[in-house]
Amino acid sequence: MFSASTLPPGPLEKVFQYIDLHQDEFVQTLKEWVAVESDSVQPVPRLRRELLRMVGLAADRLRGLGARVASVDAGFQQLSDGQTLPIPPILLAELGSDPKKPTVCFYGHLDVQPARQEDGWLTDPYTLTEVDGKLYGRGTTDNKGPVLAWINAVSAFKALDEDLPVNIKFLIEGMEESGSLALEELVRKEKSGFFSSVDCIVISDNLWISRRKPALIYGTRGNSYFTVEVKCRDQDFHSGTFGGILNEPMADLVALLGSLVDASGRILVPGIYGHVAPVTEEEKRVYEAIDLDVEEYRNSSQVKKFLFDTKEELLMHLWRYPSLSIHGIEGAFHEPGAKTVIPGRVIGKFSIRLVPHMDMSVVETQVKQHLEYIFSKRNSSNQMTVSMALGLHPWIANISDHQYLAAKRAIKTVFGTEPDMIRDGSTIPIAKILQDTTQKSVIMLPLGAVDDGEHSQNEKINRWNYIEGSKLFAAFFLEMAKLHSSW
Amino acid sequence: MFSASTLPPGPLEKVFQYIDLHQDEFVQTLKEWVAVESDSVQPVPRLRRELLRMVGLAADRLRGLGARVASVDAGFQQLSDGQTLPIPPILLAELGSDPKKPTVCFYGHLDVQPARQEDGWLTDPYTLTEVDGKLYGRGTTDNKGPVLAWINAVSAFKALDEDLPVNIKFLIEGMEESGSLALEELVRKEKSGFFSSVDCIVISDNLWISRRKPALIYGTRGNSYFTVEVKCRDQDFHSGTFGGILNEPMADLVALLGSLVDASGRILVPGIYGHVAPVTEEEKRVYEAIDLDVEEYRNSSQVKKFLFDTKEELLMHLWRYPSLSIHGIEGAFHEPGAKTVIPGRVIGKFSIRLVPHMDMSVVETQVKQHLEYIFSKRNSSNQMTVSMALGLHPWIANISDHQYLAAKRAIKTVFGTEPDMIRDGSTIPIAKILQDTTQKSVIMLPLGAVDDGEHSQNEKINRWNYIEGSKLFAAFFLEMAKLHSSW
Repeated sequence: MFSASTLPPGPLEKVFQYIDLHQDEFVQTLKEWVAVESDSVQPVPRLRRELLRMVGLAADRLRGLGARVASVDAGFQQLSDGQTLPIPPILLAELGSDPKKPTVCFYGHLDVQPARQEDGWLTDPYTLTEVDGKLYGRGTTDNKGPVLAWINAVSAFKALDEDLPVNIKFLIEGMEESGSLALEELVRKEKSGFFSSVDCIVISDNLWISRRKPALIYGTRGNSYFTVEVKCRDQDFHSGTFGGILNEPMADLVALLGSLVDASGRILVPGIYGHVAPVTEEEKRVYEAIDLDVEEYRNSSQVKKFLFDTKEELLMHLWRYPSLSIHGIEGAFHEPGAKTVIPGRVIGKFSIRLVPHMDMSVVETQVKQHLEYIFSKRNSSNQMTVSMALGLHPWIANISDHQYLAAKRAIKTVFGTEPDMIRDGSTIPIAKILQDTTQKSVIMLPLGAVDDGEHSQNEKINRWNYIEGSKLFAAFFLEMAKLHSSW
Repeated sequence: MFSASTLPPGPLEKVFQYIDLHQDEFVQTLKEWVAVESDSVQPVPRLRRELLRMVGLAADRLRGLGARVASVDAGFQQLSDGQTLPIPPILLAELGSDPKKPTVCFYGHLDVQPARQEDGWLTDPYTLTEVDGKLYGRGTTDNKGPVLAWINAVSAFKALDEDLPVNIKFLIEGMEESGSLALEELVRKEKSGFFSSVDCIVISDNLWISRRKPALIYGTRGNSYFTVEVKCRDQDFHSGTFGGILNEPMADLVALLGSLVDASGRILVPGIYGHVAPVTEEEKRVYEAIDLDVEEYRNSSQVKKFLFDTKEELLMHLWRYPSLSIHGIEGAFHEPGAKTVIPGRVIGKFSIRLVPHMDMSVVETQVKQHLEYIFSKRNSSNQMTVSMALGLHPWIANISDHQYLAAKRAIKTVFGTEPDMIRDGSTIPIAKILQDTTQKSVIMLPLGAVDDGEHSQNEKINRWNYIEGSKLFAAFFLEMAKLHSSW
């Protein structure tokens, strides 16, 4: 927390006090949002209804701030089995249109990854539970908490009847965890409409790389998600009656997946490193300046040993080199116990995190050719089908843009420190989409601590991060306004 | 059907005529038994009560034959949720104890697999329905029909007041589809009691490999079921935030599973074939004599191509060579959709079908050493644990034992043909348990045709198989008695 002596003068002081005094209300609202199982990943009608309900709740909240909210119909999602599900509407909201103020647009999402208590959650994932200042629950840090922190900041100005230093826009979607279906099309359509007056776009959908030190993010990796299906027939077999005479699809699939990456993490697809940007001297210095205690990082990650020992190697392999992960297999036996099945049709899933200047369609071709070669060598009678299910470009920003300066100053005000200048190894496609489509600058301004566990069991956001993050956004408004007056 | 000219003289002639004349009664009794939903797989009180009722019906029927029936209490089944259900009593019944006659013990079971009409049954699974000579219903072929065929054979002798050529014993259980709980313990206890006077044990719980040609079964494969766990930590990781710096458990596991079997189905665990019995010339001739249309078999299996082209190679790889199947992975992403998870802890599952004279503990050591070697070469920081979760011995009978000779002669009498001498590629632990525990010879004498669909929808037994099977058992009694007089 900041000490009284560093309190900024004027309206911000009152805003900070308001946020501190109303923090329990803010936590309560987060609890209400977490209670909605807005899982966009599992394509089932019940969850899709919950997701639509979540978008409705958020729209109501934005209207409560006085914003004009457009709930834009986003059409339908086609499932592979021929069914369709509605895509939740995308919210476009605006508050203020003073031409003398800069316009800051916040992007966030309301959908979450799947979570079930039996997967290893210590509390019900959809009941926000506070333990030692940690707010556990699915979506607390990814991304419901940060969306609400931005709303909290705005609501503090409104409640105090203070003039908002900036015009505010919101772009809120419900399909981020499923590839942001329909978003790009909308952004393209609204380039000269909703986005024309925007000065910069803020995304807060990542984490710091520390538990206490804030960070700014200037790049993210892309992702090519592949499925490789091997099919003998649609029905499964019994291993007693067919074991020994079949090209078993699982044996083929395991060989295919085993050909992708070696034990040192190096991707074995020929040519894959051909377009990776070389490391510059300046870049090396940015990595050297980052505050990371490798030993503490390793311990907090609960990992016995990483593939690399130095800070620079670790961070570069997370942020600026590609990586390949095998996620799982659909169609095989996955439950506890011992079932003697020969799966008839299995689908392996893996993805490659992409970095500048890898080209997605080149990667797609390289992967397909490689797997076809490996499969052909097996001389199997099964059918193999490789698909790139999802392709998302990497993103990199110019860190001398205004919003980076404003964010640095706001961080200094609230946290009393310089931020780590980092990238994110994950893929937040919206950054690249928004930047390319709107031609506006994008900044990633994360609130969550490194140990928040987004996408995994026991996801949480610290109460401190959530509340100080709300203040950070308020301070950011003011710094943007100050910089704007000197434009 | 047999023609009049091949009718055997004496009592058997009358028995066969009796069976033909009373076949509708026999079908009616099967209908009454099928009407009892004696499902032992779904552990719910209603079904367990039905199962107990079924055992009671069978005990009454055996008493009606004049048998002394002991209904042996088998205790309780512990369910994983802490509940208990009664295990149905095991029936030990005997009819006749003439020391001049051989004693033949029939093993059968009264429980069935689950069945619901909406799973794809064309008729109510618990209402026996005859269509074109096929008797559809759950349990018709597995195993109520064969149990009743044995009872029909005995009842024909009794009704005609003919002297039974053999002493008869029955071992009838109600938990076969759920691992034959409590059976092994009882058999062990009764080795010197109930089983001491037994000359051979008959099991009729499999199928022919043809629609019309009878078979005798002289072997079944065993099974060693393995789990191999690779663990980095209990929680999963996000591939964006950790992809590139971890020894990912899935990469390790895929490499381990990929080291087990090659594309031609050959198991790669060193030494695994060391104890597989060599193929003898006599054995080759047994395989050559088997009636199997490979093309029809392949088509009905809906498989594009098998690993082998000839009948002999196919059957040997199903019955007398080991096979390894990879069943699946627990802990990885297995659902539809695209989840970018790095599973933190994954458990691969595979099993090896064992054949004579493979030794389960040797196989366990070979598999563990192999996987430890493969894992050590990867230099991974993860933890690997290999366990043999389940081990079931293979079984093989001596086909020159009396009961095989008697069965062949009985088949010749009833069907006018030599039987296919076959094995079963699956694991039927009861044969091995009975043989090892009682030290008595076991024979598998199936009645059902290859297309009976045991365990699946629209299970049936042909009226012809049921009625001629009753005759077959009667003829078997007589052949056993004849052989006995020459012992």
